[in-house]
Amino acid sequence: MGRIICAGLGPGDPDLISVRADRAIRSARHVAFFRKAGRPGQARRIVAGMLPEGAQEYPMEYPVTTELPFDSPAYIRILAAFYDDWAMRLEQLVTTGADVVVLCEGDPLFYGSFMHLFTRLKDRVPVEVIPGIPGMVGCWNASGTPMTWGDDVLTVLMGTLPEAELIRHMQGADALAIMKTGRNLPRVRQALAAVGRLDQAWLVERGTMPGQRIARLAEVDAADCPYFAIVLVHGQGRRPVTGAPE
Amino acid sequence: MGRIICAGLGPGDPDLISVRADRAIRSARHVAFFRKAGRPGQARRIVAGMLPEGAQEYPMEYPVTTELPFDSPAYIRILAAFYDDWAMRLEQLVTTGADVVVLCEGDPLFYGSFMHLFTRLKDRVPVEVIPGIPGMVGCWNASGTPMTWGDDVLTVLMGTLPEAELIRHMQGADALAIMKTGRNLPRVRQALAAVGRLDQAWLVERGTMPGQRIARLAEVDAADCPYFAIVLVHGQGRRPVTGAPE
Repeated sequence: MGRIICAGLGPGDPDLISVRADRAIRSARHVAFFRKAGRPGQARRIVAGMLPEGAQEYPMEYPVTTELPFDSPAYIRILAAFYDDWAMRLEQLVTTGADVVVLCEGDPLFYGSFMHLFTRLKDRVPVEVIPGIPGMVGCWNASGTPMTWGDDVLTVLMGTLPEAELIRHMQGADALAIMKTGRNLPRVRQALAAVGRLDQAWLVERGTMPGQRIARLAEVDAADCPYFAIVLVHGQGRRPVTGAPE
Repeated sequence: MGRIICAGLGPGDPDLISVRADRAIRSARHVAFFRKAGRPGQARRIVAGMLPEGAQEYPMEYPVTTELPFDSPAYIRILAAFYDDWAMRLEQLVTTGADVVVLCEGDPLFYGSFMHLFTRLKDRVPVEVIPGIPGMVGCWNASGTPMTWGDDVLTVLMGTLPEAELIRHMQGADALAIMKTGRNLPRVRQALAAVGRLDQAWLVERGTMPGQRIARLAEVDAADCPYFAIVLVHGQGRRPVTGAPE
């Protein structure tokens, strides 16, 4: 019996992969990764040049992405069948004695698609998960500004939330990381404006990767909604002023 | 002119350090790290066996830790002088042409002491910060359970907050990570009980490190308040039930 090794890839720069995940990837014989159909896939791109010659690749192509509402019965049914199918295929591979490395951007247990395979497989075959630096951590490092000080409260939000919920959570927090922006960006921007924090917000696109862009959200064209971007508001709590830091 | 390289060490297992930070540490000639006076220091312990022979070490010993309230004028004055002094010493080293690796547990820009040196030094000498896996990410991986699903809201709280604030933030969030527990643990526990989430809370002590312990918070003896522990409540949002996951 082999095992599943999920390698957290971190924010995008291959140099930010952990030593353990790097080792697993560079010695992989079987490598699975999610991607949108017809695309190379972000996870696969991160490990370009790292896979050993002859490694067998298993692109797990989402049968649907944004064509259906994510909470519709059809979407749920199709995605469940997709994860069921791949769980079965990976289980079969592992029972032949193979180790399978599953690539996962960021940290696998933090909003990762791998979690859907993990819950299906963890009681059927051995599964090892190697943590990674979450994308948001790469983004605040890319911004070159400390994210949280002292007793700051950090809240992580999805741009898919209704505006009223975004506003409620934004009011309570000191530091904010907002993911799944893309076409939700206008709503995120409105919510930040409503709580008076738009001027402190940064848009980090492709953080730590080639083509990285960092801009004040207020200065980004409203029609410019990059998919792979995170909005950050840095915490200011107990901030060190000259001669009086924590 | 050399530069400051702050190496994020991640949650504690040296195998979870990034490839870039690993390289910086293994080739370091000058290594600085924070520690409590008279202790080996957690950061230094993580890199045991990694430093090249002859590397010069600079333990930066906190002049005070919990003896004074962290918001008292005396504490603020003493700590500010401490950071001023080390910023000056590291600047002097760097201006002689040396590269100085500063070790920092977790991610350096996420509640890290290094941020106090960073704000002082960033306009005086070249500073590179290498991100790391935050301690909380290592802890939820150690717990073996996905942390956030779908639209879950994650809130990160410090156990030092007043109970009413803890309760207010806990009520709004789906997933919770509570740091700086230690002697604040009884208050954290009370707040979780007040919002009906104590039964879902886990205490992760020394996550990813030797002596790791994971226990249900409700079952931990009230007098047992380990210093190096994080409390987690995992998100349940859009959780995959059989046949009906996201």
